[in-house]
Parts: sequence; C-alpha cells; structure tokens
Amino acid sequence: MTGRKEITGPLPPGATIGILGGGQLGRMLAMAAARLGLKTHIYSDEAAPCAFQVADARTQGAYDDVRALEKFAAACDVVTFEFENVPDATAEYLAAHVAIAPPPRALSVSQDRVIEKSFIAKLGIAVAPFENVESADDARKAFANIGAKGAILKTRRLGYDGKGQIKVTSADDAARAFETLAAPSILEGFVDFAFEVSAVAARARDGGFALFDIPRNAHENHILKRSTVPAGITQAMTEDAKRIARSIAEALEYVGVLAVEMFATHDHKLIVNEIAPRVHNSGHWTIEACIVSQFEQHIRAVAGWTLGDGSRHSDAVMENIIGPEHDEWAALAAKPAGLHLYGKGEARAGRKMGHITSLSPKS
Amino acid sequence: MTGRKEITGPLPPGATIGILGGGQLGRMLAMAAARLGLKTHIYSDEAAPCAFQVADARTQGAYDDVRALEKFAAACDVVTFEFENVPDATAEYLAAHVAIAPPPRALSVSQDRVIEKSFIAKLGIAVAPFENVESADDARKAFANIGAKGAILKTRRLGYDGKGQIKVTSADDAARAFETLAAPSILEGFVDFAFEVSAVAARARDGGFALFDIPRNAHENHILKRSTVPAGITQAMTEDAKRIARSIAEALEYVGVLAVEMFATHDHKLIVNEIAPRVHNSGHWTIEACIVSQFEQHIRAVAGWTLGDGSRHSDAVMENIIGPEHDEWAALAAKPAGLHLYGKGEARAGRKMGHITSLSPKS
Repeated sequence: MTGRKEITGPLPPGATIGILGGGQLGRMLAMAAARLGLKTHIYSDEAAPCAFQVADARTQGAYDDVRALEKFAAACDVVTFEFENVPDATAEYLAAHVAIAPPPRALSVSQDRVIEKSFIAKLGIAVAPFENVESADDARKAFANIGAKGAILKTRRLGYDGKGQIKVTSADDAARAFETLAAPSILEGFVDFAFEVSAVAARARDGGFALFDIPRNAHENHILKRSTVPAGITQAMTEDAKRIARSIAEALEYVGVLAVEMFATHDHKLIVNEIAPRVHNSGHWTIEACIVSQFEQHIRAVAGWTLGDGSRHSDAVMENIIGPEHDEWAALAAKPAGLHLYGKGEARAGRKMGHITSLSPKS
Repeated sequence: MTGRKEITGPLPPGATIGILGGGQLGRMLAMAAARLGLKTHIYSDEAAPCAFQVADARTQGAYDDVRALEKFAAACDVVTFEFENVPDATAEYLAAHVAIAPPPRALSVSQDRVIEKSFIAKLGIAVAPFENVESADDARKAFANIGAKGAILKTRRLGYDGKGQIKVTSADDAARAFETLAAPSILEGFVDFAFEVSAVAARARDGGFALFDIPRNAHENHILKRSTVPAGITQAMTEDAKRIARSIAEALEYVGVLAVEMFATHDHKLIVNEIAPRVHNSGHWTIEACIVSQFEQHIRAVAGWTLGDGSRHSDAVMENIIGPEHDEWAALAAKPAGLHLYGKGEARAGRKMGHITSLSPKS
C-alpha cells in the first residue's frame, strides 16, 4: 500500500471506521457508528472480543502484525482506538497508511505518567505533586520532597484500575515499593480532595469543542463504581473544568472524545489526576441522559462530522456491574433503569461486565 | 433436528436471538439485543441487508429454503420476525424447531386484512366498515353498502405504504379498481377522522403488559412522515387505546411488541385501522425519549425477560428520512436531534433511509 488515506470532509454514511481494540468501549463505539449509518471494523488480538458481536467486519491479529494491520488500514476509511496502550509502533504504522484519530501524540503522552503530568503542568494546569523515580534512591528522595501527606508510587507505563501502584507512607516504603514494581515509576504526593470528577469532552476536526456535563465519580477497589450527574460543583468549577479540558485538547490537536480525571478539593479547586485519550467509563450515562452520547461524539469527530448536541435532559446515576455482580442480571433487568451488558464470557473478579443507568427529572 | 427448543425461563446473556428479516427494524432490534448482552443472528433473503452490519451471525437464504432455515433454527435460542409477511410455511417450519415469538397466529391474522378486521371486530373493538371483495360484482355491492363517504379497495394480502390500494368514489370505480388489483380484496369505507394515532404495546411471556405513550402520526404519500408525543388526546382515549391493545395482545397470546394503528375521530373515539405484529415506525421515538425503547421491549419479551421501564421522560417528535432526503445527511447531522441512518445503499424514492428524533422537556 502506498500513500495515506486522508479525510478531506465528513465521511459519508456507509464509510468504515476501524477500531483498534474489542472491549466494551469498542462495542459501544460500534453501536454509535451504526446509528449514524457508518460501518465498523474491529481489530483485536483476542479471538472473540465482545465488540465483534456488533461490528460489520472483524480482524483478529496481534497488535504488531504488520501484514494484518496493513489489510486493516486498507479496509478502513479512518481508524480510532478504544484503549490508550496502543504500542507506539502500531499507531505510527497505521498513521502512515490511513487517517487516524485521536492523534498518536495523545496516546504517547497519556501512556507515560511522567510525560503526561509534565505536559499538563506546562499548560498551567494544576496536577498532584510528582517526581520521576528511576531507582530506590530516587524513590526515597521523592518521598522526602513530596510525601508529607503520604504518596503513591506508580509505574510510568501501563497499569490501570489500581494495578501497578503502591501506597507508601515513608521513604523506606517508597524504596521497597520501587523494588516491587521494578519498572520506571512516578511518585505522586497525596492530594487532600473532597471527591473526584471528570471532564468528558469532544473535539472535532474543524476545532469544534463540546463538554458533557461533569459527573462526580466514586471508586471502589480502585475501579469506578458510580458516576452521578450533576456533580454538585460550583459554576466556577464547571468553567474551570471546561478550560482545562479544552486547553489539553487543543494542545494535543485532539480529535475525538477525551476524558480528564480530576480531584475536586475542599476549597473548590480542580487538580488533574490523569487523562484518557478515549471514551471513558464516567461518560456512559450520556447514552441515556443526552440525545448524543460520548460514543456518538467520538464517532462524529473521528469521521470528520460536526459534533452533535450533547446537552443533558435528565439527571443520571451510572453504576458499573463488576465481576460476579453480573450473576444478578435478571434482578438488574427488573429495575427501572437502562441496563447494558457487554456480552463478555467470563465474569472474573474486577472485570467490567456491564453498567446500569437510572434517570430522574433534571434538577 | 428433532424436538423443539423451548424457553423455560429468561434466556441468559450470551444467548442468541434469531431475527427473520434484515431491514432497519431488524437492525435496531439487533442493537437493542446487544445492549442486553444478547447475540443476534439475522436471516435474510438479501445478500447485504442493513441489519447484517450489526449482527453477530448472518445467514442469506430464501425464506422457503428448508435446509438453511433448519441450520438457522439450530443456531438460535429463540426466533423473531421484523416483518409480518413471513410465509406461513416458513413460520410453521421454524415453530416446529425452535421457540418463536410473536406467535405465528399473529402473523397469519395480520397478513390478511379481512381476517384481521374480523378478528378485531369480534373483540368488540371498532374498525372501519369493511366487506370482503372477490369479484367486480362484490366490489360494486360493497361500495353500495359502505361507500357513502367514499371507500378504498385494498388487496387482502401484502401491500404496504400505500401499495396495493386504490381510492374509489363510485360503485363503477370500485369494480374497475378490483380489475386493476386482480387479487382477493377488501373494501373499506372511509372514516371521517381527525388524525391518526398508534398504540405500541409490549406483552411478555409472563403476561406482563406495557404500553408506550401514544404518538400522533402524520403520513405523506401513504408513508409515515412524523410521529409526535404526546398526541394531544384525552385521558379517556389513552385508556381506550390501552384497552384495545391489551385486548388484541391477549386474544393472540402475544409475546413481543405489537402496534395498533388507529383513527382518532372528531368526537374522541378510536377506530382501529390495522395491526402490525412487530416493532413499528411510530415507536422509533422511544429510543431517545424512554429509558427502554420499543426495540428493547420486544427483545425482552422474546427472550423471556421481564418488560423494562418504557415510561417517557421527554416530549418527542420523530421524522422519517425518506428516499433522496437522505442526501441531506450532513445538514441533518447538524441539528440538535438524534439522527439514525440505516446503512442502506441506495436512496430510492419512498425508501425509509433513516429517521431523526427531537426531544423537548416533558409537557
């Protein structure tokens, strides 16, 4: 294949959106694309990922299988991602052959916690105090500098839902944690926050920008359990969140949906925790409570369409269905709520199996 | 294959719903099933019907291809239909091998306008005056009996969106119309109505019954153009509509979503026009305005689940996108509304290509 397919205008209905990754985010993206008359082609290294069940075309291939990626790129009009840990080489290879969004830089920035936090801080946005840790000695020094309220050592790369991170309460602790993680790490000083929120924003190819209403997020065992909208934050915080999300999206020349996870402090400030260059679990409530969901906004942006109306018509509470909670599907189906089950085979502990969203009149 | 698969309880997530027919209704049913973690297998006589794009499994086969139907039945846990003109032999063959819903009797009743109207009238429900017409002479006599306000001659079987029907204003007209249609027909006397409405109802295997709010329907060129909720009918009419839909559903031992098209008269009476034993175009607004849509209610009923909460949180107006109106997709996408494009190839005149739903706060 020579040359690179570009997007010069909105892709017409019938065009094919390639999605790298076959989990529930890919599944919900595929369904949003179908609503708009766009086809999807899912590429996954798994044999039967849940997104295959709703896609027009499916490829099983390793993420470094250049021949499979080339065929995939040739079959798609544009390619996007449902997870941020796409190998650099994969993203670069695809980008050389087909239009992709979000931009690979958004992936590389968000894949490394030190690069990510440095990038955000340079934009003048508050982040938790952090230091790069390449040795046990670094870990000790970093703790001395920023660990007064306690700290958490995390691997710079990979790690999610609490994996690859250790809470530390002393310099010795920090050094031991580094030996355990045994990988380039980051020490983050604790932030004394009141609760967590996220900004789920969309940026289109034409620069159009839209922010969904801000949800308040509650975690259990390091996994998102519940998102509630409205979040009960001040108007100034809402504007701050929008400024933060927009500033990050523009600096990355971002196209697609981007989530910014933030701590809300007791004195009504926002401190960015991390960014996710994709649709986000804390935006699932938009399926029921907005006429255009986060999944559709992402597809619209990726396909070069104008963004849709993401305004919220109802208050919403979204709860994840995790691991064996899935066994209660019949009871969940009887609730007056929007039930989503992801079609995954095995309900392993900690695995996101579905979610359920309740609506109430807009407050 | 021997024996017949029965449904003894709710089908668990991961089960497969077979859908006969691959049009937009099958497509939206497949997406609703996927939301609940259920797989779909579409059977169509077309090579690339739009529902294939979102289904887990796909079979192209003639509707009388017994070997293909047998394989299809073996691959599904339950089978349903997206159109009512399923050949009797096909429905019976499938019913002998796999659980099916709605019941074949609902298909055979609704396939023949004389049988349909007789069945409804016997339940004590008002229908337009009608007579069976098997000859030009029958047509003349029928017009003399019930044509005082004008009448319409329709083929008893097949025909939709105005096809297979001719407006007549005299006995001679009626006779000529019969020669043109050249098929067993029905003469229906005109009803002097104020507007049209429909009852989109769901009945579950456990007898549970739910009625969506009643839409007011406007047709253009015999094709539904617009459904508006609320319909602006009296509370008594709403209760009447519910009684009518429930009475028909129970008489048919119905399982699934059923639509009853009705005329609303100037003196606030309802007269049934026809029934559709399937999800219905006048129920598309439920995707945006209810937490559980008509498509999900149908899948829940067919799969033996309890019905969901179909209450309406917003007012809604749904407009069909017909034929070349589809060319305006980019302008439609810019509206603050829920756009649905069906992924069909060619925008032929009169073809339903998509729909768009606007919401406003509940009045």
